[in-house]
Amino acid sequence: MAHIKLPEGLPGIRGLMAFRPETAKPLNDLAEVLLRSENSLTRGERELIATYVSALNDCFFCQNAHGGLAQHYLQCDMNYIDQVKHNYELTNLGAKMKSLLAIAASVQKGGKHVTPDQIDRAKALGATDREIHDTVLIAAAFCMFNRYVDGLGTWAPQDRQFYIDRAPRRAEEGYANYNPQN
Amino acid sequence: MAHIKLPEGLPGIRGLMAFRPETAKPLNDLAEVLLRSENSLTRGERELIATYVSALNDCFFCQNAHGGLAQHYLQCDMNYIDQVKHNYELTNLGAKMKSLLAIAASVQKGGKHVTPDQIDRAKALGATDREIHDTVLIAAAFCMFNRYVDGLGTWAPQDRQFYIDRAPRRAEEGYANYNPQN
Repeated sequence: MAHIKLPEGLPGIRGLMAFRPETAKPLNDLAEVLLRSENSLTRGERELIATYVSALNDCFFCQNAHGGLAQHYLQCDMNYIDQVKHNYELTNLGAKMKSLLAIAASVQKGGKHVTPDQIDRAKALGATDREIHDTVLIAAAFCMFNRYVDGLGTWAPQDRQFYIDRAPRRAEEGYANYNPQN
Repeated sequence: MAHIKLPEGLPGIRGLMAFRPETAKPLNDLAEVLLRSENSLTRGERELIATYVSALNDCFFCQNAHGGLAQHYLQCDMNYIDQVKHNYELTNLGAKMKSLLAIAASVQKGGKHVTPDQIDRAKALGATDREIHDTVLIAAAFCMFNRYVDGLGTWAPQDRQFYIDRAPRRAEEGYANYNPQN
């Protein structure tokens, strides 16, 4: 049971967004810019960063909701997403993407954990300043979203297929005009 | 030196907001709703939660920028703000506010660190569901802002008087139409 009284039947962040639409608006606007709007990182790559950080923060709802979107965009299966979460270095992800996930992992621990060596490696592999900026902010934003969802004790469907089934519609709708009731 | 090339002369989050105005907009909108708009928690109390979490995350820029605002709104000095950061239980803050700071401290560690006992205590001391919600989201949001500011290696003026001197104007201007150049 959630720590506060939320509208019934809405899992994860959806109940919170229905409870407090005033904060839902800028949160969804932020997700839209970071995860969907024009970017040299694909939507799949950005959802993968979000998924990876959510896994590091052990947030079941976020890692599955965004993992579902990542597998939808990347046209892979959840097994591949799980491999990335467990050890992305062993996957066939590109070297630049691996260098960005390393930065994201440091951000999850705390901002000061990001090292000049990690930044140099990403730049040497072709990461632009904006890609590094967005990686840090996506990782930081999911340190917020994950804490928001778990800090208020929300519930989440345990069947992972639920998130896979929802992903195509969530990809189509986007975040900006997100209706938590749907 | 910051990890990416930022506009010169703008400390902390200001350089990042000038670098990427598309993400600055929802970030400032979120701060405006959480820290300034209508609420049963005063602006001073909300800035104090932000300051406390930023201190736990060891983010010099955020804890001083928001600490400056907290002392401005609460009409105290930075010595009092420092006492709150070091051990709020020993200050003359009200019991409800102390119970909310305990929740904020758990959120800073991770969402699952918030306990039913902490929530029960806050409710018994008169905290409403919305106050608990906003405390969790303020704490979570500063886990983002702090990681954003430090994860990209921004610089910050070391003289704490700088933040105190800026606070009255920052309080007047608010966040929604924030211009990082000013």
